[in-house]
Amino acid sequence: MPLFRLDASIRVEGSHSREIADLVEKPWRDAHPDDTVIKRQVGLAPLPSTAWANAVAGSWTPADQRTPEQAEAVALAATLADELIAADALLFALPLYNFGVSQHFKAWVDLIITDPRFAPGGEQVLAGKTAIVVLVRGGGYGPGTPRAGWDHGEGWIRRILEDVWGLNVEVVELELTLAHQVEAMAELRPLADELRSKAENYAAQHGHNLVGASA
Amino acid sequence: MPLFRLDASIRVEGSHSREIADLVEKPWRDAHPDDTVIKRQVGLAPLPSTAWANAVAGSWTPADQRTPEQAEAVALAATLADELIAADALLFALPLYNFGVSQHFKAWVDLIITDPRFAPGGEQVLAGKTAIVVLVRGGGYGPGTPRAGWDHGEGWIRRILEDVWGLNVEVVELELTLAHQVEAMAELRPLADELRSKAENYAAQHGHNLVGASA
Repeated sequence: MPLFRLDASIRVEGSHSREIADLVEKPWRDAHPDDTVIKRQVGLAPLPSTAWANAVAGSWTPADQRTPEQAEAVALAATLADELIAADALLFALPLYNFGVSQHFKAWVDLIITDPRFAPGGEQVLAGKTAIVVLVRGGGYGPGTPRAGWDHGEGWIRRILEDVWGLNVEVVELELTLAHQVEAMAELRPLADELRSKAENYAAQHGHNLVGASA
Repeated sequence: MPLFRLDASIRVEGSHSREIADLVEKPWRDAHPDDTVIKRQVGLAPLPSTAWANAVAGSWTPADQRTPEQAEAVALAATLADELIAADALLFALPLYNFGVSQHFKAWVDLIITDPRFAPGGEQVLAGKTAIVVLVRGGGYGPGTPRAGWDHGEGWIRRILEDVWGLNVEVVELELTLAHQVEAMAELRPLADELRSKAENYAAQHGHNLVGASA
C-alpha cells in the first residue's frame, strides 16, 4: 500500500520541511521499493482557490444539476479523499507561515472535508492510521521565549488530524531554521544546529517505525 | 477617508457574517454618504492561489528581473496594502471554517505581509486604527461546552491584527448560527436567537462608535 506525502512549503531549494520529510520517507522507500508514494505538493501546485466553495455548493446540489465548476470541484475532493483512504501511512511536511497554518494546507483540508466520506460526525475513515507530521518554524516558540504562544498552527493541525480524522499523529518538530540566514539570530546558531540534528534523528527513527508498523 | 471591508464568507445568501457586518457598516455609510467603502470579497473572489508564493519569490528578486507572474503578484500585494493604508477604519467579517481560519483570509494576510510596508519587524503602518472584527461560528465553543478550545481561528486573527499590525480590535461575535438548520441543535435555538440579538446590537453600536471615532 502506498505512502501519502503532502508538502506545504512554497519553495524547493532551502525547504527545511522537505529535507526532514525526506528523512522520514527514505527508510519507507527502501523497504517498499515497489510501492508508490502519492505526493501532493500543495505549496508548489496549490489547489484552485475557488475549488472549496464550488465543492461546498456542489455538495448541496444533486449531481445532475451541478455546474461544470461544481462537478469538477466535487471530483477533485473525491480524488484527494481517495488518496488518503488508499494510503498505508501519511506524511505531512508543514512549515509555520506568518504564525499560522499554511493557507494551502488549510485549503486542502477544507476541500477534503466536503467529500461525503469525510462528512463531519460520520465514520472516521482514516482512524488508526499513522501520520508523521513534520512541523517547521523559522523562529523559536518555546516556553519562556518572546514568541511563546505565537504558534497558531500546531493546535489546529492536531485538532484536524487527531480529533477529527482519528489519526495516530507523531510530530517531528524543527525550530530556528532562519538562524543561519538572519544576522540577529547569530547567537542561536549552535542551538539551531542541535535542534536540526535532533530533528534529523527523530525523522529517520519515525521513518523506520513506519516500516515496522506497515510490515 | 474610506472604510475598508473584507468578507471571508464563501456564500452570499444565508451568510451570517455579512449580515452582522452590514449592521456595522450602515451607521458609517449613513454618516459618510460621499465616502467609499473599499470591499475585498476574499471568499467570493479569492486571490489567485499562487499569488503569495510568487510575491515572496518576487520580493527576493530585483524588480527588473522578476517573472511576469512575480511582478503581477508583487503589484497585487501593493494594491492590497494600499487599500488598508488608505482606510480610516477596517471591518472584517470572518466565519470560522472547519475549526480554523478562512483559507482565503489567511491567503490575503500572507500576501499583504510580502509588501515592504508590512515587513515583519518594521514600522506598524496601521497602528492605532480601529478594526471591527465580526467572528461567526456555526456551533458553540464557550467554556464548558464539548467544543471548548476548538476555535483555532480567533487566536491567530487577533495575533495578526492586534500584535503584528497594531490595530485596535473590537470583536463582535456570533455563535450557534447553524442551530436553525441542524435538527440536533433544536434545543439551542432560543439561545441562538438571544446571541443573534446581542450580536446585532453590538454590531450597530460598534458602527456608531466608528462614526464617532472618525468624526
